[in-house]
Amino acid sequence: MKRLFTVLVAAMIAAAPALADEVRSTGALGIVIERAAGTVAVIDTRAHTRLATVEGLGDLSHASAVFSPDERYAYIFGRDGGLSKIDVLTGTLVNRVMQSGNSIGGAISDNGRLVAVANYEPGGVRVFDADTLAPVADIPATDIGNGKRSKVVGLADAPGRRFVFSLWDTGEIWIADFSAGPQPVVTRITDIGANPYDALITPDGRYYVAGLFGEDGLALVDLWHPEKGARRILDSYGRGEEPLPVYKMPHLEGWAVAGRHAFVPAVGRHEVLVIDMDTWTEAGRIPVHGQPVFVMAEPGGRHVWVNFAVPHNDTLQVLDTETLAIVETLTPGPGVLHMEFAPRGDQVWMSVRDGNEVQVRDTLTRKVIATLPADKPSGIFMTARAHRIGL
Amino acid sequence: MKRLFTVLVAAMIAAAPALADEVRSTGALGIVIERAAGTVAVIDTRAHTRLATVEGLGDLSHASAVFSPDERYAYIFGRDGGLSKIDVLTGTLVNRVMQSGNSIGGAISDNGRLVAVANYEPGGVRVFDADTLAPVADIPATDIGNGKRSKVVGLADAPGRRFVFSLWDTGEIWIADFSAGPQPVVTRITDIGANPYDALITPDGRYYVAGLFGEDGLALVDLWHPEKGARRILDSYGRGEEPLPVYKMPHLEGWAVAGRHAFVPAVGRHEVLVIDMDTWTEAGRIPVHGQPVFVMAEPGGRHVWVNFAVPHNDTLQVLDTETLAIVETLTPGPGVLHMEFAPRGDQVWMSVRDGNEVQVRDTLTRKVIATLPADKPSGIFMTARAHRIGL
Repeated sequence: MKRLFTVLVAAMIAAAPALADEVRSTGALGIVIERAAGTVAVIDTRAHTRLATVEGLGDLSHASAVFSPDERYAYIFGRDGGLSKIDVLTGTLVNRVMQSGNSIGGAISDNGRLVAVANYEPGGVRVFDADTLAPVADIPATDIGNGKRSKVVGLADAPGRRFVFSLWDTGEIWIADFSAGPQPVVTRITDIGANPYDALITPDGRYYVAGLFGEDGLALVDLWHPEKGARRILDSYGRGEEPLPVYKMPHLEGWAVAGRHAFVPAVGRHEVLVIDMDTWTEAGRIPVHGQPVFVMAEPGGRHVWVNFAVPHNDTLQVLDTETLAIVETLTPGPGVLHMEFAPRGDQVWMSVRDGNEVQVRDTLTRKVIATLPADKPSGIFMTARAHRIGL
Repeated sequence: MKRLFTVLVAAMIAAAPALADEVRSTGALGIVIERAAGTVAVIDTRAHTRLATVEGLGDLSHASAVFSPDERYAYIFGRDGGLSKIDVLTGTLVNRVMQSGNSIGGAISDNGRLVAVANYEPGGVRVFDADTLAPVADIPATDIGNGKRSKVVGLADAPGRRFVFSLWDTGEIWIADFSAGPQPVVTRITDIGANPYDALITPDGRYYVAGLFGEDGLALVDLWHPEKGARRILDSYGRGEEPLPVYKMPHLEGWAVAGRHAFVPAVGRHEVLVIDMDTWTEAGRIPVHGQPVFVMAEPGGRHVWVNFAVPHNDTLQVLDTETLAIVETLTPGPGVLHMEFAPRGDQVWMSVRDGNEVQVRDTLTRKVIATLPADKPSGIFMTARAHRIGL
C-alpha cells in the first residue's frame, strides 16, 4: 500500500505543470504538511490539485507555517529547529537554516520583514531577515539555572512590528517591539501562571491569551495596555479538581469567535466551552463527542467545526453558535488532524492522516467535493493567512 | 503640469517590467482607479511601484472593484454599466461587457463563480459567469410603473453563495441565494424604510445594514434570520430634525469595528458616531473636523482614520477607539478621497485626487514613506479583499 501510494504520488508529480514556466496567481494556493515524509505539498485550492512537492524539510511533526505578505514564500517551522523558506510559485525550497536544536512555531512581522521562531533549546526567540534568513536578533529567555533558559511557546505577531510569546518554565509573557529597528524593546510580564503551553491572539488583534498547563485558568494580556500586565480569566478552564487523562492538549489557535462569544476546546473533557469575550467569563458548555482539539469557526460565524483527540479522532462535529446544538456529526476517516476554511468559507479542507488523504468539503452541504492523496497529511495552510493578524 | 504629468506616467510605464514574462505572486498587488482618464493602475503595494496601466474602462466615477479568489482578476464596476475584467498579473483588460445603462457597484460570490452588478437602469441585479462574463441570471427589481423598476444599491456578497441588495425606490432588501444553482431563490424583505442609499455587511458576515436617505435610522437584517425581516436601529442616525446641507452622503462600507463598537460617519454633521453592536444603540459621538465620508479601522482596531467631504477634504483625522480622542490631524493634500490599509495594518494608502498622487504612510508614525503619481486617483483596492466577506 505504501509503495502503491508512493508510485501514485510520483505519477501525480510528474503530471504537474512546470510551475515556473506558467503565469499563476497565488491567492488560492496553499500548502499541506506531510509529516512522516518531511515534505510539503503545494496545492491549488480552487482547482483541487497538487502542484508540487517540496522535499528535504526535516522533522515536520507539529510543523506550522506563515506566508510573506505577497504570498510568494512560505516559512515552515519544523520541530527540529529547522526554518525553511519555500517558493510556492515555483514549488522549490529556496533557503533553509538550522536555527536551534528544538523549536515550536513561529510568526512573521506585520510588514513581512522579520520571521521569528520560538525555541525550546536554547530557550528563547530568534529573529531572521525574511529575505535572506540572516540572523537579525536573538532574545534569550529567562535563565533557569544550569546554563538553561526557559522554553518559549505561543509565539504570534501583533500589529506594530511586535511579537508576543510565553515562557513555559518561568510563567511569563514577553512582547518584543521591533518598531524602532532590529534591536527590540522587550516588555516582560511575569507571574502570569504556571507553565503556559500555547497561546493565541484574538482575531481583532487586541488580546493575547495563554493556556496554562500547570494550573487552571487562562492568562490574558491586552496588547493595547501591556502596562496593566496579565489578567487571570476563566478560573474554571483547565483540567479541574478531578483531572481526566488528557490525550492531547487542545490547540488554542483554533479559538472560534462568533459575535461576543468565543468557542474553545475544554481540556480533558468532552466539552466545548463558550466564553463571553466582553466579560471573559464562561457563558456555557456544549457536550461533544470526545476531547476537542481544534474548534474552528466557519467564516460568517454561524457554525463551528470541532475535531477530537484519540480515540475519537475519526470524527468531526458541527455546532450551531446560536442554538449551541450539534447539527451534524461526520466521520471523515482515521486521524482527522487539521481543518482549514477557504477565507470566505465556501470550502473546508481537512487532513485525514491515517487515510493518507486530504478531503475538500462544501461548507453548506458538508459533502466531499474532492479528495487529494497525501502522505500522512497534518497541517493545511492557505495563502490567505498572509493577510491575517496573529497567525 | 498636466502634460508633464502625462510624460512622467508614460516614462514610468515604459520602465515597468513586462509583466507576463515574470514569475510574480499576487498577494501584495492592488489597483487604483484613475477616474478622469478611465484607467486603472496596477500597483505593487510592497515595492511601492506602479506595474501597469489598463486603459479603456469607460466612466469610472464611483467605480469599485472585487477580486477573484485566486487574486488573478479584478472586476471593475463602472458608472456607465460597464463590467470590466482585468488580469492583474499581465496588466491587461481581458473582457468587458456593457451590461446596463447605469450601474452602481457589484460583488463576487463566496466561491468566486458569480459576479453580480447593481443597476439603476434597468433597475435590478444582473449576474454573470466570473470566467466568461456570460449572463447567468437577471433579477429585475420591483416595478414602479411606466415600464420602470426600482434602482438597486448596496449590493454585497454573503456566505452561502448569496447576494444581498437594497431597492432605492421601493424600500426593500432582497437576498438572492444561488446555492441551488443558477436560478436564485430570492427572499424579499419589504417596508424597510424610505430610500436606502448604501449598505454594508458587518465584518463578521452576519448583519446587513442599509442607510436611509428618506428618513432617519438604519435598516438591519440578520442574515442568520432573514425570516425576521428588517429591524429599525439608531433612530437618531440621519439628517435629523434640522437638516444641515449634506455635501456627500457618507460611505457605509467604511464602517469600522473595534470590539463591540462600530464607528460610523454621521450624516451632515461634523461627528463620528459610536454604535454599540450588542444593542444596536448609539454609545457616543465624537466631534471631528468636517462631514466624515469614510471611517476606517486600522487592523488591530486601536485607531480609526476619517476623511471628509468638501470643503474639508484635504484633511484626515485619526481617532483613538478607546479614549475617543483625536490623536492626530493630517493634511495629506487636496481631495483625499479614499484610504486602504495593508491587511495586517502596517501601511495605509490614500488617494489625493487633486494632488494627482497616491500616498503611502507608515501606520505607526503616520509619515509618508512613498508617493506614486496617479491621474486623479480615487478608489484603491488591494488583492487581500479577495479573502474578505461583504466587500
